[in-house]
Amino acid sequence: MSIENFSVRGRLADTGEGITADELQLAARNHGMPLESLRYDVTPPGLHYVLVHYDIPATNAGEWLLNVDGCVEQPLTFGLTELRAMGRRTVRVTLECAGNGRATLQPRPISQPWLSEAVGTAEWTGVLLSDLLRLAGLRSDAVDVVFTGADHGVERGVEQDYQRGLSVEEAIDSGALVAWEMNGAPLPPQHGYPLRLVVPGWYGMASVKWLRSIEVIDHTFDGFQNAVAYRIRTDADDPGVAITRIEPRALLVPPGFPDFMSRHRFVAAGTVPLFGRAWSGWAPIERVEVSTDAGVNWHEAKLSAPSNEDDELAWRAFAYDWEATPGEHVLTVRAYDASGREQPIEAPWNRGGFTNNTAQRITVLVT
Amino acid sequence: MSIENFSVRGRLADTGEGITADELQLAARNHGMPLESLRYDVTPPGLHYVLVHYDIPATNAGEWLLNVDGCVEQPLTFGLTELRAMGRRTVRVTLECAGNGRATLQPRPISQPWLSEAVGTAEWTGVLLSDLLRLAGLRSDAVDVVFTGADHGVERGVEQDYQRGLSVEEAIDSGALVAWEMNGAPLPPQHGYPLRLVVPGWYGMASVKWLRSIEVIDHTFDGFQNAVAYRIRTDADDPGVAITRIEPRALLVPPGFPDFMSRHRFVAAGTVPLFGRAWSGWAPIERVEVSTDAGVNWHEAKLSAPSNEDDELAWRAFAYDWEATPGEHVLTVRAYDASGREQPIEAPWNRGGFTNNTAQRITVLVT
Repeated sequence: MSIENFSVRGRLADTGEGITADELQLAARNHGMPLESLRYDVTPPGLHYVLVHYDIPATNAGEWLLNVDGCVEQPLTFGLTELRAMGRRTVRVTLECAGNGRATLQPRPISQPWLSEAVGTAEWTGVLLSDLLRLAGLRSDAVDVVFTGADHGVERGVEQDYQRGLSVEEAIDSGALVAWEMNGAPLPPQHGYPLRLVVPGWYGMASVKWLRSIEVIDHTFDGFQNAVAYRIRTDADDPGVAITRIEPRALLVPPGFPDFMSRHRFVAAGTVPLFGRAWSGWAPIERVEVSTDAGVNWHEAKLSAPSNEDDELAWRAFAYDWEATPGEHVLTVRAYDASGREQPIEAPWNRGGFTNNTAQRITVLVT
Repeated sequence: MSIENFSVRGRLADTGEGITADELQLAARNHGMPLESLRYDVTPPGLHYVLVHYDIPATNAGEWLLNVDGCVEQPLTFGLTELRAMGRRTVRVTLECAGNGRATLQPRPISQPWLSEAVGTAEWTGVLLSDLLRLAGLRSDAVDVVFTGADHGVERGVEQDYQRGLSVEEAIDSGALVAWEMNGAPLPPQHGYPLRLVVPGWYGMASVKWLRSIEVIDHTFDGFQNAVAYRIRTDADDPGVAITRIEPRALLVPPGFPDFMSRHRFVAAGTVPLFGRAWSGWAPIERVEVSTDAGVNWHEAKLSAPSNEDDELAWRAFAYDWEATPGEHVLTVRAYDASGREQPIEAPWNRGGFTNNTAQRITVLVT
């Protein structure tokens, strides 16, 4: 027997097939953000979504070293103390898992079975990646920057440390941060303690946790997480298109109160203040629409002002007063950003179940 | 249509039925403790298991009031400031969900589908419940103490605030704490901010979060969470037996590294240090046994010393050096406590899927 016996290519669920034991193992480890937590401008760490590919590694901040090398004039090694001396910048960022919404697709790609909760917003503190690269000095042959974390495992037969690459332009222009604090405290273990990358606007797969190496290479990175995983494909054998920035999405705090098991919602008739958040990794949110009749009629929500200039890719709050009448109602919302992207009522299917920003639907019984 | 249409009695999964959409909704909200986190003596808050029956309520510490009334000489109301003036005690407690292990049962009771990760250990700071009851003065007709949280919802047709009762003796003798800090910081929202009950040794359902009322009553409490839910039944129509203290359990940190999807483990041949934690709510752990051949032979693990006298119901670390030879191996562990309780290889089935302390099994490929 070998590793390949236990680490196979993903499959699609059969028609009507329930969530599998493998999917449940992932769902019991990783977690989304309960949607009532949309009420917090900044998500408390234990409520922020978490996706860990392998195990949370045992790490030690005192001994941690980050290497910056490859196609640079001067390879550098930083401990936490040296990194802190490079500067201190705090940015509010909304991160979302590229697989958010996967488990609602038909057919369902079998992997981490997210519904719609794989999101969170935090204030990350660290140093700009571009400052580290400038200090090391990019050589003229630099093409991609490869980020390596300390989490180790196997995926579809490939043993690996978690690694992702960005082009030199993306690494610099994205405003990526090498961060050691989340919401003013050291990173929690599951969020990358003691050091992680945070790439504002990009799906979470780019923000490598437990970051120990930044290597500049002279060719396009072809590692597993760039070349095999995290690509939009309609067929398993397509080369696919790389996943980059977060598509626009709006989510409501489900109003009223729930049934424990079905999560069905109940509210009393009258004016029901609806509240939610919307975000896009491409451009600031410009508009959010709310429908309380399953998408027949749409109403413009009141958008909050952005919190400050640095945070234009963090989520924005919206509100709408619903005059709720007795009976069952389906609430739905959609976001529009300044790049012209609009959230679809139903996003196109893809083989990996990625970037599914299909509009949320909440069924509410008004009593 | 009414609430009852959407809030029905639980059922058992059919043979071979995958995890349902309802179960997945709960699994995406609530989360276990990834088992590699057993390495931490005290679980960081975002890794500690979380089970929320309804929604995490919006709360405000500055305005929070806790009422103590009913069969007492002097009804009392405390704000956070007054409570803090009553004393400050910190206890390390292992909490486990009564439903831990539910999803591994055959047939599977449909509810929050825990595997084995619904556990965590924290240092809780607050005031002894017995001090509050003494100050209020228990009347001679006092029988039960009812704790009410601020989370509101419906369960099997019953609209309710989450409530649990303890007998007066249990409330005093358990060393229960009314806590406002977890691991030295204010309670995170999902753990009961700003105030919760912590009942050492008891399954988590007793430790009412978002605690706003303590009422002493002159009869046995017959609320939903005591009289209907959280009972051991073999048949849905049994009155059942109330769930109280945590049964003994040992869990290993899964050794080596995992496959992302199957979570199958791989280790290199040689000496593999196995490490884990064991706990019981009935008495201190006395002994842990490890088997590396699926339970044929058992070896005594090395138990760590208890951390201090106050923490005898917190988990204890254990270790065992495994001489791993190539091939597939099944690791399993079992705990024994000072009350004479021993962890079974397979726990008896019950209708709600509670207190399932069946021994953990980890399949490892040694290469």
